[in-house]
Amino acid sequence: MTTFDELWESLLPIGRDPATGGYRRFCLTPAELECRAWFETAAAQRQLRVQADGNGNLFAWWDVPGGGSAVATGSHLDSVPDGGAFDGPLGVVSAFAAIDELRATGFQPARPIAVAAFAEEEGGRFGVACLGSRLLTGAIDPGTARGLRDGAGITFADAMQAAGHDPARLGPDDDLLGRTATYVELHIEQGRALADLDAAVGLAEGIWPHGRWRLDFTGRADHAGTAKLVGRADPMLPYAHTVLAARQAATELGTLATIGKVRAEPGAANAVSSSVHAWLDVRAAGTSQLNATVDQVLTAAREAAESHRVAFGWMGESLTPAVSFDTGLRGRLAAALAGQGIAAPVLPTGAGHDAGILAARRPTAMLFVRNPTGVSHSPAEHAEPADCAAGVTALAAVLRELAG
Amino acid sequence: MTTFDELWESLLPIGRDPATGGYRRFCLTPAELECRAWFETAAAQRQLRVQADGNGNLFAWWDVPGGGSAVATGSHLDSVPDGGAFDGPLGVVSAFAAIDELRATGFQPARPIAVAAFAEEEGGRFGVACLGSRLLTGAIDPGTARGLRDGAGITFADAMQAAGHDPARLGPDDDLLGRTATYVELHIEQGRALADLDAAVGLAEGIWPHGRWRLDFTGRADHAGTAKLVGRADPMLPYAHTVLAARQAATELGTLATIGKVRAEPGAANAVSSSVHAWLDVRAAGTSQLNATVDQVLTAAREAAESHRVAFGWMGESLTPAVSFDTGLRGRLAAALAGQGIAAPVLPTGAGHDAGILAARRPTAMLFVRNPTGVSHSPAEHAEPADCAAGVTALAAVLRELAG
Repeated sequence: MTTFDELWESLLPIGRDPATGGYRRFCLTPAELECRAWFETAAAQRQLRVQADGNGNLFAWWDVPGGGSAVATGSHLDSVPDGGAFDGPLGVVSAFAAIDELRATGFQPARPIAVAAFAEEEGGRFGVACLGSRLLTGAIDPGTARGLRDGAGITFADAMQAAGHDPARLGPDDDLLGRTATYVELHIEQGRALADLDAAVGLAEGIWPHGRWRLDFTGRADHAGTAKLVGRADPMLPYAHTVLAARQAATELGTLATIGKVRAEPGAANAVSSSVHAWLDVRAAGTSQLNATVDQVLTAAREAAESHRVAFGWMGESLTPAVSFDTGLRGRLAAALAGQGIAAPVLPTGAGHDAGILAARRPTAMLFVRNPTGVSHSPAEHAEPADCAAGVTALAAVLRELAG
Repeated sequence: MTTFDELWESLLPIGRDPATGGYRRFCLTPAELECRAWFETAAAQRQLRVQADGNGNLFAWWDVPGGGSAVATGSHLDSVPDGGAFDGPLGVVSAFAAIDELRATGFQPARPIAVAAFAEEEGGRFGVACLGSRLLTGAIDPGTARGLRDGAGITFADAMQAAGHDPARLGPDDDLLGRTATYVELHIEQGRALADLDAAVGLAEGIWPHGRWRLDFTGRADHAGTAKLVGRADPMLPYAHTVLAARQAATELGTLATIGKVRAEPGAANAVSSSVHAWLDVRAAGTSQLNATVDQVLTAAREAAESHRVAFGWMGESLTPAVSFDTGLRGRLAAALAGQGIAAPVLPTGAGHDAGILAARRPTAMLFVRNPTGVSHSPAEHAEPADCAAGVTALAAVLRELAG
């Protein structure tokens, strides 16, 4: 059994729902705290020094006294609801395994190497994706972060406190960033571009601009058995129009638009809804297509709401500009991989990543590992063992290049 | 202050959500148990004997030794989520107030009079409307009822046990039914027919046939930022088509169709849904229109699902045939009301009631009280104090006629 397999198998059962096979590793919940304990054990087994920053991010340091600024790699351990096993953990497990591979060859780094596990990357509990890396880099105000609430009303500050972290320490950490020269994140591909190109690993070109909008349709609750159709103000109808308009806008504009989260109030089978709340996710190759898509959906929602005498409001919850990863760094990585006989195609992606947040402050790159079906955020997401091993080899080559 | 006002004011704060002004009095929850305690207090203040049957229904008896079978009146105390103050409680409060009005005139009943509060009329906790009256009359199997679960997975049997009721006693009670000659339920109107007719009270003609169908759309979870539109199997899209198809079918066929409850899995803003579950409520003047509406919606749902490569399944959760209330009893009531100078128009309704369940076993009638806006199952549901007083007077006249 390789060290990758050992690490993978030990992490696999944590937070897995036996009914769906999906993972529910939400930030600072018992399952995710167990993942953190797993991280600390993996670090200790390798004599790596564990550091928790003030934002709930974990780092395992291969210290090199006097070695200057570090090469950081890693990903995240949290999941979306019923997510797959690979999104996040593959980057962390591969980082530890790459260190083992380097050490097995007697490699001595000239710079420190850090394995990172960023907090709340999915935004699955507190609603803001990449929360840990946003806090670290100053991309979100600590006061705003402290006040974020989960579905049960618990604030991020209270959840941090309960897990033994001081929420007063939340915020940018320029010292930690200053000690980091580059960040390279390995991640399972969330599409099937590598499968189509017949390549085990790839390099990221950049991340599409993307955002999340909350849509609120407010009508009037009524009795489903007695309220005449003509007198109703049923917010479910303009919501349904908006779902279809989002797909139509994305199709017309060559973008992505999705509504995957909806809440009807009061939510009774025999009541006309008083309100429907929905979350619109939009991604596009460029900002103008992104804006055009959102405008088209919001216009359709407003018109449908008016025609049903329903009030419509919306709020931008997050907006992440386009990210272009450092081309010089990518060139170095491509050359290093080519030196190992690894051809790594360069791909864009519509998925957000901590690497995209860190790219605003540090030269950053990403390695993708092939996902045969392209399915992601689902228990069906998968990478073959041989491709995982190729990912570890590629990451080891990258670390050797950057920290050698 | 009238006794109606006193009773009304004392019940009003129980289970009220200060944020919405709506009620959350779900069967056997603390708020609803407080309503039961209120019922027992109101009965004790009037020297009425309280009896809880084996099904969680409450009765307050004005006993008449040797008086033969009883006249029962009342309604229910539970609510839909965020329901109004009147749906249910108006019938119970008016029953106690009508007894006070009869006693104030020195009336001595020749038959016993019972005030009833039936359990889980709304199906707001365990999903089956009129659960208490269905159990009493044998319209639902006790074993099925025991196994019904609330949203948290608690069974009706466990909830009964926790509230001090023996779930083994669930089931039909022919002795209790045999001691009941007639049942008359007073209820706030759930439409605006009385407002349009300028009448304070009305009599029910019958209840439209109605039912509830669960619709399950099963697609494939995916990443909202990377899965290409053409490769998706997003169940939210056929769900949206079905919402619109339900409104269209009801408009075309002159029926009512509503989807007020929907659940998307996994319910993440950045994930294409793996499944969407929705509940369709349909009501119609006749069974053929009801069936035609359901058929049209299910066909549309199936076609939309197929075109999006989504699996579609459905299950009938409840189906209540048309109810025609006893015409002889209604004639007696109309004559008694006319004798008091009260003109009570006769109305059909699309809403289910315990009276509709009891009508299968006993001569049953309903009195409606005007609701100016017609809004129901909402904090906006309302009856004016003068109309509530007219309802009490009408109910007292009815009890005098039937129990005199």
